[in-house]
Amino acid sequence: MKDKLVRNAAGREVVTEINGNPAVPYLGVGKFKPEGRKAAPPIPTCADYPADGNKVLSDLKTALEKAGLRDGMTISTHHHFRNGDLVANRIFDAAAELGVKDLRWFPSASFPCHEPMIRHLDSGVIHHIEGSMNGPLGDYASSGKMRGLGVLRSHGGRYQAVQDGEVHIDIAVIAAPTSDPFGNCNGVNGPSACGGLGFALADSQYADKVIVVTDNLVPFPCVPWQIMGNNVDSVVVTEKIGDPEKIVSGTTNITKSPDRLLIAELTARFVEAAGILQDGFSFQAGAGGTALSFALFLRDMMRAKNIKARFVRGGSTQYLVDMLNEGLTDYILDGQTFDLAGVRSMRDNPHHIHTNPFVSYNYHNKGNIASMVDVVVLGATEVDVHFNANVVTHSDGRLLHGIGGWQNCLFSKCTILPIPTFRDRIPVIVDEVTTLCGPGELIDVIVTERGIAINPLRQDLIDRTKNSGLPIRSIEALKDEIESICGGAPDKPRFRDNAIAAIKWVDGTVIDIVRQLE
Amino acid sequence: MKDKLVRNAAGREVVTEINGNPAVPYLGVGKFKPEGRKAAPPIPTCADYPADGNKVLSDLKTALEKAGLRDGMTISTHHHFRNGDLVANRIFDAAAELGVKDLRWFPSASFPCHEPMIRHLDSGVIHHIEGSMNGPLGDYASSGKMRGLGVLRSHGGRYQAVQDGEVHIDIAVIAAPTSDPFGNCNGVNGPSACGGLGFALADSQYADKVIVVTDNLVPFPCVPWQIMGNNVDSVVVTEKIGDPEKIVSGTTNITKSPDRLLIAELTARFVEAAGILQDGFSFQAGAGGTALSFALFLRDMMRAKNIKARFVRGGSTQYLVDMLNEGLTDYILDGQTFDLAGVRSMRDNPHHIHTNPFVSYNYHNKGNIASMVDVVVLGATEVDVHFNANVVTHSDGRLLHGIGGWQNCLFSKCTILPIPTFRDRIPVIVDEVTTLCGPGELIDVIVTERGIAINPLRQDLIDRTKNSGLPIRSIEALKDEIESICGGAPDKPRFRDNAIAAIKWVDGTVIDIVRQLE
Repeated sequence: MKDKLVRNAAGREVVTEINGNPAVPYLGVGKFKPEGRKAAPPIPTCADYPADGNKVLSDLKTALEKAGLRDGMTISTHHHFRNGDLVANRIFDAAAELGVKDLRWFPSASFPCHEPMIRHLDSGVIHHIEGSMNGPLGDYASSGKMRGLGVLRSHGGRYQAVQDGEVHIDIAVIAAPTSDPFGNCNGVNGPSACGGLGFALADSQYADKVIVVTDNLVPFPCVPWQIMGNNVDSVVVTEKIGDPEKIVSGTTNITKSPDRLLIAELTARFVEAAGILQDGFSFQAGAGGTALSFALFLRDMMRAKNIKARFVRGGSTQYLVDMLNEGLTDYILDGQTFDLAGVRSMRDNPHHIHTNPFVSYNYHNKGNIASMVDVVVLGATEVDVHFNANVVTHSDGRLLHGIGGWQNCLFSKCTILPIPTFRDRIPVIVDEVTTLCGPGELIDVIVTERGIAINPLRQDLIDRTKNSGLPIRSIEALKDEIESICGGAPDKPRFRDNAIAAIKWVDGTVIDIVRQLE
Repeated sequence: MKDKLVRNAAGREVVTEINGNPAVPYLGVGKFKPEGRKAAPPIPTCADYPADGNKVLSDLKTALEKAGLRDGMTISTHHHFRNGDLVANRIFDAAAELGVKDLRWFPSASFPCHEPMIRHLDSGVIHHIEGSMNGPLGDYASSGKMRGLGVLRSHGGRYQAVQDGEVHIDIAVIAAPTSDPFGNCNGVNGPSACGGLGFALADSQYADKVIVVTDNLVPFPCVPWQIMGNNVDSVVVTEKIGDPEKIVSGTTNITKSPDRLLIAELTARFVEAAGILQDGFSFQAGAGGTALSFALFLRDMMRAKNIKARFVRGGSTQYLVDMLNEGLTDYILDGQTFDLAGVRSMRDNPHHIHTNPFVSYNYHNKGNIASMVDVVVLGATEVDVHFNANVVTHSDGRLLHGIGGWQNCLFSKCTILPIPTFRDRIPVIVDEVTTLCGPGELIDVIVTERGIAINPLRQDLIDRTKNSGLPIRSIEALKDEIESICGGAPDKPRFRDNAIAAIKWVDGTVIDIVRQLE
């Protein structure tokens, strides 16, 4: 069946319907004005819950049955365990045993550890996945095998979709490293500690039924209650819920590649030259090798100039924790911890603050943290000459990555993408991105090992850095040079007409689609 | 105009309409089953808020105008400053200057410091008050001068009413001892520190517009964000918002009255005899003289028997803080701090947990903390022979007190009212309470200086204490003895027919009304 497509404000042809529901094409940054009111969960009563607060049920299957699991429901999970998650697969195994079909799986993200879900997608237990698909499940969707259309949202977009009633969660299953029998739970304690549980916040607030699954039950009260037991229907105590080695990497490595180190250093020098590196400033960088190296270059500059940040946004690592402990920042505002040092710091240091997509990223909000960050450093699979960027597909058209908080972070006061000019001899700067995830008007600077391109919309940055001695060039010049090295622009992927996934913008509109590969 | 009245499940004649809206008569404990969904605030968008997070406006009047203040709106405030609040009066002074009329004031409670509101009630700026009225405003309502019907709710009932959409708040004004320009705010820091801001949580979540008023602006992020800036529309920086001496009493006093001390001691001995005093138990006691003395007797027993509580519910005081620091309890779960030691402990001790009416008291919830507390010690103005109790009116019929968390706490596993048998020679144990606030089936024990009465419904408590040597008597015998001392039952107040206030039960139904005095 051919999808009905319309051209959106970014010039992309997108679907107007997603799995039977109407979808609004992207209108431009800040142009879509939501109407109506937030989603409203059913009003519960304490009369229906045990007065002693003990909501423990014997096992997950019982909890799913008691929650009324039936065909066509939406089941949500979070991805704080990343590739070490041991709970999501068990949910759908149980659903299969119960003979339930056509479920919508609504994870905050899926990982290679969820490859066993392909069996349930094939058999029809799962109808389709809405959520970032990293690795094999993205590949599965790209091949056109998934029954429904995939929907990729940013962390903030996921909160927005639930809050606005665009996605109604029937049953949320929240894997929690520590919980009490009432369902108060957190991720900072217990053998499967993963740090925060913020990605499950919307689920706990808006789902009809909420099941907490834990391998570490403690007496009431479990504090901090990152998820409030008052929103929880039942608690299941089970064997290991996460593989700690895969939840957090014991060490997060800075890059050793000379090119990547150069990119990281140029990025830090750009931040300094642009006048961003001032007392009380803030930054966000991911946990990838280049981003970590950037943070270390920045740290050294901060030490040298005696500059203290007001806050640093995590994903936290040992490196950020060290900066906090050294007094180089007042706070870490952290959405997810990437190593054990991050987990411990979030648990023990009151200046290491647990955040969630509501406070950080949700665009349908009275402001959020993302737009207050002075500078953010992000990755991309492709960037085009209009500074548009792609994070979900490769140049070959395969859907292999989620959006994460990437779209949300673009609202920072200065968004920098430090990227290599090519990967595997395929140019990263292109005429037009394969999939549009972030509009160029929000992307300010591209830093490569061959020079720095500043978005012409940011005349202020151009002015402030023009005498910096940094290798500032036009993005077209960069592209031309790379193409001459790589022997031309990358081949365009060969797509069929039909969409296999929709890419949502932070406001719930459709910014692009991913098509099935030939 | 005569109100249409019906007899509710407690045998009380109550109104079926409150200020033009239908009201459900009380059906019995746990009998009312809510239908429908929670209130849903309008969906905002970050596009309408400053990207740099600076929401500071010049003054309160400007903020009220920008929030769209107009005739007939509902304006809410919290009472964490108790009798030291300096903000609420200013709101309605500003409204009067703006020429606005017929406002509904929806405080979490009002105090004698709000006596100036009588001017605005007389002039029609305020149509009526919904919220506890302590002192002069209650007296004003009792005299029949208020245009609308007063509505008294418990802390949990207030959250429930807002959550369920029974009360729609147009503009919430949240006085905050510390705030950042984004509206993240708390009560633990700043010159007007009052501890928590939990009473304003529902307001921040459900009001259309939220204004934070602070006298201590700090750079983003203000942590902890007891109120999230993401729910805030504007921030006003102003002169002193609270009178610290009246916000918290420097010292909270234990009773010196020999009778009260006896009551406190008997209460503690009852708790021990009933087998409640066990490792991991929990209790809640208020900050009144008798309750504090009870806590100290209990503390001494805990020391002697080497018993540690799992948690103690605050209102916190120096005494509870000392118990926490001494290791006699794992946690204080605190709804409001009653002295500076409580404020400091909530700020500095991660085991002193800030709670709010959602987690503690809201009955339209998937459970709450109140029902998990092993024993709670509460006051009352009257108790009748069916263990029904009154906390809002005196025997003379005057409305002088709010409900606070009292109704919510009745759900504790053991509810004890330690009360003197008479006050000013007026018996406290009566045939029928003047105003019914709590149904007798939830009130387990009455402790007086003349003996202890156990509710016949609690055969378990009767059995466990029968050989304790405690002076256990029937409530009828107590009543007879008191009447013989005081020269008979108290005179019945002389009421007119019309209601001046409705008393809500925790589920939003009407458990009783207060009538106008002749």
